[in-house]
Amino acid sequence: MPTVSLSRLQGRITGLARFGALPGGGVTRPCWSPPHEEARAWLLAEMKAAGLTTWVDPAGNVFGATGVEALSAAAPAVLTGSHIDTVPEGGILDGALGVLAGLECLHVVTGTRAAHRRPLVVAAWSDEEGRYGSLFGSRAFCGALDVPRIPEMASVDGERLVDAMARAGFDAARAPEARAPAGAVDAYVELHIEQGPRLEEAGVPIGVVDAIVGVRRSRMVFHGQADHAGTTPMERRRDAFLGAAEYALRAREHVVTRGSGRSVTNVGVVRVHPGASNIVPGRAELVHEMRDPDPAVLERLALECEELAERVARERGLRAEVRRLSVTVPAPCSPRVQAAVAGAAESLGLAWQRLYSAAGHDAQNLAAITDAGMIFIPSKGGRSHRTDEASDWEAIERGANVLLRSLLALAA
Amino acid sequence: MPTVSLSRLQGRITGLARFGALPGGGVTRPCWSPPHEEARAWLLAEMKAAGLTTWVDPAGNVFGATGVEALSAAAPAVLTGSHIDTVPEGGILDGALGVLAGLECLHVVTGTRAAHRRPLVVAAWSDEEGRYGSLFGSRAFCGALDVPRIPEMASVDGERLVDAMARAGFDAARAPEARAPAGAVDAYVELHIEQGPRLEEAGVPIGVVDAIVGVRRSRMVFHGQADHAGTTPMERRRDAFLGAAEYALRAREHVVTRGSGRSVTNVGVVRVHPGASNIVPGRAELVHEMRDPDPAVLERLALECEELAERVARERGLRAEVRRLSVTVPAPCSPRVQAAVAGAAESLGLAWQRLYSAAGHDAQNLAAITDAGMIFIPSKGGRSHRTDEASDWEAIERGANVLLRSLLALAA
Repeated sequence: MPTVSLSRLQGRITGLARFGALPGGGVTRPCWSPPHEEARAWLLAEMKAAGLTTWVDPAGNVFGATGVEALSAAAPAVLTGSHIDTVPEGGILDGALGVLAGLECLHVVTGTRAAHRRPLVVAAWSDEEGRYGSLFGSRAFCGALDVPRIPEMASVDGERLVDAMARAGFDAARAPEARAPAGAVDAYVELHIEQGPRLEEAGVPIGVVDAIVGVRRSRMVFHGQADHAGTTPMERRRDAFLGAAEYALRAREHVVTRGSGRSVTNVGVVRVHPGASNIVPGRAELVHEMRDPDPAVLERLALECEELAERVARERGLRAEVRRLSVTVPAPCSPRVQAAVAGAAESLGLAWQRLYSAAGHDAQNLAAITDAGMIFIPSKGGRSHRTDEASDWEAIERGANVLLRSLLALAA
Repeated sequence: MPTVSLSRLQGRITGLARFGALPGGGVTRPCWSPPHEEARAWLLAEMKAAGLTTWVDPAGNVFGATGVEALSAAAPAVLTGSHIDTVPEGGILDGALGVLAGLECLHVVTGTRAAHRRPLVVAAWSDEEGRYGSLFGSRAFCGALDVPRIPEMASVDGERLVDAMARAGFDAARAPEARAPAGAVDAYVELHIEQGPRLEEAGVPIGVVDAIVGVRRSRMVFHGQADHAGTTPMERRRDAFLGAAEYALRAREHVVTRGSGRSVTNVGVVRVHPGASNIVPGRAELVHEMRDPDPAVLERLALECEELAERVARERGLRAEVRRLSVTVPAPCSPRVQAAVAGAAESLGLAWQRLYSAAGHDAQNLAAITDAGMIFIPSKGGRSHRTDEASDWEAIERGANVLLRSLLALAA
């Protein structure tokens, strides 16, 4: 059996890390930004040099393929990939590993003429991190874009997707044309760092992902009464922030004690109005996010938290307003892909364990149109979305070899 | 005994309310703004028409006097006054009442030649509401300005005091020259709306203020760890916002149950970093404000809340950082002035009660240089710092007559 070249893969990982590199380590490379577009050009050149045919679709997804010029139902392909965009002050592996290990696998396959019946394709999906729209490229590819919303999609600092794409030479209105022909994808498998501590702590080199969590986000707004913070008696205040604070603490407790054990929750956005130290807060807004790999659990928790918000508001003389912002549905991974990954690990003498992904990934979109799954390798200290995100080179080599054998098995 | 003319006072109150009037009622008239400077010119003209001598000092304070051209230790004066600046979207009485009732009293005194040994002076103090610096004019008059800080004083939207004063024709560097000559002020009494509900609910028309609260503001910063909100196990998160939320709830409870009964507390400013829904908050900042009329209580509560912040942080694996932002010292009111006000109310057959001021006032600065006190009248529904702030005209007339008799008693 062929194996990957760690030195070549290592060279490409450090090569890609130059685009958007930060002085102290790590990268900032948001989709459609100049460093991202330079990285795209570099990636296309690397793919061509590896003997792959390449194309870029109208959603900005980059493809490199063995033997085919495009995806077609006539010759269903086995896909791998990930993304080359990063969060601000992110690491050099999140996304980059899956794209460059996929490229390395196809490089090995074309170089060794390893047997494979189905075409192999590596993809770099646009804006996985969601500067303008979470998992944008794979959504477009899987026909899951909310097309009427495209003109209003924007970054948190207000830049419109339409303008960002235009600057990079793309027409956002044409993104829906990136949709893959029905039946053109036979399977999808993505290599990624775990971004959590479970594999490292278990001492297991390979994770076979059995499900990807769904994410629910809701804006919880507590309406009270803005009043003079000196002269209004304490017992008469209707302080919206205290309601929001109590909700945040109780919602966390609820999700931890009444969730599935795999449920997680976060309040990462908090705004208080009018925001003066001498005025009782009249309005407080939270963005409450919950994740679970089971859609029924997620829906139950969302309903229970909405009831909790109403209860906290009522007890404090406030009014709660709940607006569901976004939902990604939990995606179970294909048993066929899980079996291929587990078999690949075993053939390499590597221990593996099943685990769910607590982060969203492009694979969850692919799961809607094909057999999809993921391979995880350990993250040092579970760190991710940080400049000091890391995995051992040996762990990367093991993961890339498991990906190579999985692709060959799926494409056989 | 002479009495005030309600119709003349009412005419001036509605006259002053035109400057910075809002379409739906109420006013926005921040100090040094064009509407404020027009109001200043109007006020000086009204004072002159009432037979008073007038001057404006280098801090922008406006004075109208009976019989003297300036303040001097040779003839210590009895002062009254308040301010003509307002908060954004404020009411027509906060400040304006004290200035215009004071003007009406002096108008009556000059018109009726009512006996008074000491000169009487009415003042409109600059920037009581603190757009650029809380109680600025009375601080300057009482020698309590933090002079080295003047060049950096600025509004929350970044405009420097120096520039705002220059636009209005004043030189901020000269503001310290507004300091009153030692011994030039014999007593100070200020009429103001209560801005709270106590008098209205007690059915008592006159409040004799026995103390003005001090205000302490501290910035409480909770430092945790920003982490991926999906992949970081719940039990490992060091969520700075949850620490801040718990602190806010417990600090309120502490101040309410362990304060003096007159202690109030507010968290009106909240900031969470990095502020993304999918990142565990790594840092959360609160501005915590406390008020009490007793300096010892205020200091004890501040220390106890600082300990609470440390404890909450420790329990949650966070680090608390406390920075004291500002302090105004509680000011007890002069027994001599309280007796004069109580006597004036009784001579008019009006019930009165002692109460403390839960808001800051210029009188707290005057209390450092002379016998100072305040008269409160009921606020409808306790409302203030709102466009629908109101008091009955009868209540205003009663308050102005109590002020007149108090001034004559103090100046006798």
